[in-house]
Amino acid sequence: MSARQVDDQGRLRHLLTLDGLPRDVLLRLLDRAHALQAQALAGGSREILAGKAVCTLFFEPSTRTRSSFQLAATRLGADVLNFDASTSSTSKGETAIDTLRNIEAMGVRGFVVRHQVDGAVAVLAESADAGTALINAGDGRSAHPTQGLLDMLTIRQAKGGDFSALKILMVGDVRHSRVARSDLHALRTLGAGEVRICGPRTLLPSDDTLQGCVVGEDLDAALGGADVVMMLRLQRERMQEGLISSIDDYHRDFGLTAERLRRAAADAVVLHPGPMNRGVEIDDDVADGPQSLILKQVANGVAVRMAVLEALLGDDRRATAH
Amino acid sequence: MSARQVDDQGRLRHLLTLDGLPRDVLLRLLDRAHALQAQALAGGSREILAGKAVCTLFFEPSTRTRSSFQLAATRLGADVLNFDASTSSTSKGETAIDTLRNIEAMGVRGFVVRHQVDGAVAVLAESADAGTALINAGDGRSAHPTQGLLDMLTIRQAKGGDFSALKILMVGDVRHSRVARSDLHALRTLGAGEVRICGPRTLLPSDDTLQGCVVGEDLDAALGGADVVMMLRLQRERMQEGLISSIDDYHRDFGLTAERLRRAAADAVVLHPGPMNRGVEIDDDVADGPQSLILKQVANGVAVRMAVLEALLGDDRRATAH
Amino acid sequence: MSARQVDDQGRLRHLLTLDGLPRDVLLRLLDRAHALQAQALAGGSREILAGKAVCTLFFEPSTRTRSSFQLAATRLGADVLNFDASTSSTSKGETAIDTLRNIEAMGVRGFVVRHQVDGAVAVLAESADAGTALINAGDGRSAHPTQGLLDMLTIRQAKGGDFSALKILMVGDVRHSRVARSDLHALRTLGAGEVRICGPRTLLPSDDTLQGCVVGEDLDAALGGADVVMMLRLQRERMQEGLISSIDDYHRDFGLTAERLRRAAADAVVLHPGPMNRGVEIDDDVADGPQSLILKQVANGVAVRMAVLEALLGDDRRATAH
Repeated sequence: MSARQVDDQGRLRHLLTLDGLPRDVLLRLLDRAHALQAQALAGGSREILAGKAVCTLFFEPSTRTRSSFQLAATRLGADVLNFDASTSSTSKGETAIDTLRNIEAMGVRGFVVRHQVDGAVAVLAESADAGTALINAGDGRSAHPTQGLLDMLTIRQAKGGDFSALKILMVGDVRHSRVARSDLHALRTLGAGEVRICGPRTLLPSDDTLQGCVVGEDLDAALGGADVVMMLRLQRERMQEGLISSIDDYHRDFGLTAERLRRAAADAVVLHPGPMNRGVEIDDDVADGPQSLILKQVANGVAVRMAVLEALLGDDRRATAH
Repeated sequence: MSARQVDDQGRLRHLLTLDGLPRDVLLRLLDRAHALQAQALAGGSREILAGKAVCTLFFEPSTRTRSSFQLAATRLGADVLNFDASTSSTSKGETAIDTLRNIEAMGVRGFVVRHQVDGAVAVLAESADAGTALINAGDGRSAHPTQGLLDMLTIRQAKGGDFSALKILMVGDVRHSRVARSDLHALRTLGAGEVRICGPRTLLPSDDTLQGCVVGEDLDAALGGADVVMMLRLQRERMQEGLISSIDDYHRDFGLTAERLRRAAADAVVLHPGPMNRGVEIDDDVADGPQSLILKQVANGVAVRMAVLEALLGDDRRATAH
Repeated sequence: MSARQVDDQGRLRHLLTLDGLPRDVLLRLLDRAHALQAQALAGGSREILAGKAVCTLFFEPSTRTRSSFQLAATRLGADVLNFDASTSSTSKGETAIDTLRNIEAMGVRGFVVRHQVDGAVAVLAESADAGTALINAGDGRSAHPTQGLLDMLTIRQAKGGDFSALKILMVGDVRHSRVARSDLHALRTLGAGEVRICGPRTLLPSDDTLQGCVVGEDLDAALGGADVVMMLRLQRERMQEGLISSIDDYHRDFGLTAERLRRAAADAVVLHPGPMNRGVEIDDDVADGPQSLILKQVANGVAVRMAVLEALLGDDRRATAH
């Protein structure tokens, strides 16, 4: 995988997954995201992609992620084309590859792609022209790399760059979560001290996703001394699927309350990828409390996406070169 | 209400309603809208919001109002993010407040919000950061302040600034109309000479909305000598709800025909907020006739929205300061 | 028709159809499209429509055509308003003319209109202000002039400007195709040497559309020595309508396979307006083969639309003046 997304000179060609993304490439993206945040505020980032076109190509709708990428591209001066593939030519029998190739032929060089099928974005990347870059904005349950990056940036800003010193707890439906997988990839690369996973067995993956993690079903125990608590969204359809007994039971066993959070380190921080189910996986006083970094994550999302777009499409691509 | 939208220095922080909006603030917005119209034509307005992001956040769809705001923001140089909240995260169980807070965290400072619930925009404004401004683009039946402003600008351009000299007639479904309410608020503030209301009793409000107005059910009588005739849109669902007997009856009793219009002052002007039901509340030869200002209203809509966006988000906010 | 779209000075006022469009106007658009392609790549086209607003007004959805126009307008520096008329005021009972007049009143001068009814765009053009220009982006089965132009540009780039030397074959559902009609109009104007039409009788028009063409039902015969092969999309609903017996039969009789293509001239080129039904009207190895110009068509689509927008809305409209 990493061969496809990083070229021989160590430059990023696509961003498909954080799995195997070299540590120095990952760190340079975080550094650049941090720098671009300030630069954009000062209005100095509009030349970076001026005149270039970026397309958000979503085969599965997601207004929020699309908006974050749109704002990131706009702040870099790019033209943005929002292409809702769920209601377009694709529904007329056109293949996803033909849709991509067509928009590419219109002069678009950057694609932000979301697809419901695992690996679909990597397959599309193989069909793209040499000068075209794809960013995976979520494929199936596999990966959501910019979410992983923004979570790492958020943790680093709060806790410093030494991930080996951190006990990080992830709670909830890891099994169906591409966010969780991208976070785990990044935490492995950054050498997190301890990664704990907590959730009902029915919502934990049975493959090697959790390798090296401390896994449990007792949230109170798992929280003990944690430095970072990453909550996952519970899709309500998990109840219909029989994977959880009830929303109330889920909240009782795995919902993060203010009382429970006191078991974590005194300066622990709380993350959630959104959109939140308040009162289910997270309580209001945690979500809106002083330890919550949830809105900081959203702000960092735009910065990280700017950094990725710049690395892939900017004229000066040294940012990710060795 | 006005406390929330105007700060201690008399500056507009949000635009939620025209009810209680100080007369000088209202007049300054009209003056500035008039000036911006010329300035935009000359291409000189693009610096006003350059680099700032405005989001149209519509919980109830309205392509036309959204487009007017989009063009207004674009002409001021802003980046515009169209967020259709009726098909987004909100439908995934996210609260409207979380949706707003999220987009705010992405760096958006101006929100144009439409919501089907009365008062919803004011509630959202309470949750916003100090630097964030909301514009009510229509909430329930309560208010549609930029429509009120554009109507006032249109009347003033046609009839001059002395509203006390004017007999203004509003015809139709005042009860369900946020346009009517915002117009009435503004007319009260501007001291309109006489405000007449005409419509079937079933479509007139039973609260104090019509205080100070001359109310009747005889359109021929109400038109006598009127200087301004403001027609309201009839929603066809009023028939299903049993509030009117039939569309034909409504047209017979309350439809504005060219013949009827002759009862008004010779130089009377006709307004309609659109979209029109031609042949129902208004006939073609009136809608397209020489007394119609309907397209002028639409043009003024963009100007007024530019003025409001500038007042709320421009660096130099003197326009609305005392 | 041409009287309406070309003024007394020979300048293009609207682009409604290629039927009767003067040869010099057509050629100048192709020349200008070719030039703008290079100019846009060098970043030098953004001043052409800077500060002007273009609206894509689609009464029938088409994400792909809309995107091509959006990118074309953006590269000329225009502001683009995407107005989805199938889900807007029009559905509230507003007439298409009122929708157009309203957006026009907002200051939009260029409209890219798609409508399901034959002639609808021409009707709308009659209602527009003197300074407003409409581009037909497809009306019913009548015309899709920018597709015709992009096809001519693609053929000219591949085969040179002497159309009289060319044998051009069009295959498929000509009867329901506005693309075919616009291509035929242009080929007539450019004096194509021989135009052959091949398809099942049920999918060929019974009016004078095919006048001057060589019509047949035997694809193998029709391909003999052809220089240009233009495939048309088969709508799958033609089977439900009983116009073809089955998709398989259609592919057997009218699908372009690599083997069949060998009957054409050795340097024959293949066009398709997209979206393709691979394995129905065209096989993968043709669509993706060395003779295919299908992606070139897409690229030329943006260039042609830039040329048309410039001719209609640019300050210096000499490009189309005599």
